[in-house]
Amino acid sequence: MTKRYSKELTNLKEMVLRMGGLAETMTHRAVQALVDRKREILAEVVEMEQQVDRLHIDIDEIALGMIALRQPTATDLRFITAAMKINTDLERIGDQAINIVEKAEELLAVPMVKPLIDIPRMAGIAEEMLKAALDAFVQGDVESAYRTIEKDDAVDQLKDQVFRELLTFMMADASTIARSMDLILVSRHLERIADHATNICEDVIFMVKGKDVRHQ
Amino acid sequence: MTKRYSKELTNLKEMVLRMGGLAETMTHRAVQALVDRKREILAEVVEMEQQVDRLHIDIDEIALGMIALRQPTATDLRFITAAMKINTDLERIGDQAINIVEKAEELLAVPMVKPLIDIPRMAGIAEEMLKAALDAFVQGDVESAYRTIEKDDAVDQLKDQVFRELLTFMMADASTIARSMDLILVSRHLERIADHATNICEDVIFMVKGKDVRHQ
Repeated sequence: MTKRYSKELTNLKEMVLRMGGLAETMTHRAVQALVDRKREILAEVVEMEQQVDRLHIDIDEIALGMIALRQPTATDLRFITAAMKINTDLERIGDQAINIVEKAEELLAVPMVKPLIDIPRMAGIAEEMLKAALDAFVQGDVESAYRTIEKDDAVDQLKDQVFRELLTFMMADASTIARSMDLILVSRHLERIADHATNICEDVIFMVKGKDVRHQ
Repeated sequence: MTKRYSKELTNLKEMVLRMGGLAETMTHRAVQALVDRKREILAEVVEMEQQVDRLHIDIDEIALGMIALRQPTATDLRFITAAMKINTDLERIGDQAINIVEKAEELLAVPMVKPLIDIPRMAGIAEEMLKAALDAFVQGDVESAYRTIEKDDAVDQLKDQVFRELLTFMMADASTIARSMDLILVSRHLERIADHATNICEDVIFMVKGKDVRHQ
């Protein structure tokens, strides 16, 4: 492997990590704005999306260029295609964070239905999963990827809990319906962020083992 | 290009189309079951998902094998990576159809809130978009891909309309809340199916033009 090619591989990995860091921060700050009722944070998240979108395009272009020019070995090819797949998931996480921002904008204009407990907890787990997934990518750590996938159940359970709880609020007081709906949708966006982290873990396992663990 | 390689490219295209046909049918049948209140259709959709999951894995494996062994030209490489990306979107469409099935199971157990008009209309547009996106992939038809992307706005508008209408039902009669929520979520799943069709169109444009039109 030439020095330049090896540098390209490192560069690709770093770009994915930079994008992962942005996606994680966007998720964290969007939920923080909602929980702490700080509208000024929302604009910050929207700005970060532009960086994510730019990286989304750049990573794909660089990865494709490397496949075309470097004729990578099977291992490198799995790494490069994993980077492309992770790239897609990270961009979608950014989209979900923006969806949360949009709901937060509505929710911050009206009084809270209730103090938020499960939603920040969901966000915490989703962020942890994303962080662990990216670490697993860097380290090629299959065990950690498997452990991270297991956490997805906790997020799904919290989502169901949020749904059931807010349903009782809506039934008891029709004036809470629109706000409760928005919170339910926020919890769905967080669930999807956790799903994307799960996808990343599956890509890491495939990258390392050459074994497809999706749909098992 | 060897005869065998050319056959592999055709085979890959056909697998993507087969998967696209399944994703389209799953969407159509899931909504049909809901609208016509025919529970027996739901099991059929669930069965189709297994075929989609199998194809999802197979397409990725074949595409990756071709990149590794055939050292494709820039054009073929763009075609093969487009097939991989479209593969991901089609699998997610299958997931969304299953989400609709799950909501339909709940909704068919209780009386309708109202006759469904906008939801089948959304499904119709989403299916058309998916069909057109796959045709554009086969034909390499960039103009058609651009036209199809434009239809996404109509789906988004219908989604907002469904939301507003059901909100009034929920406010007027708390006994409709759970059912209205389910219908709102069905409309979100259809919106996402249209988003995946849009992604496919963007992949087709990149495949043909070598130009990334995402985030414009």
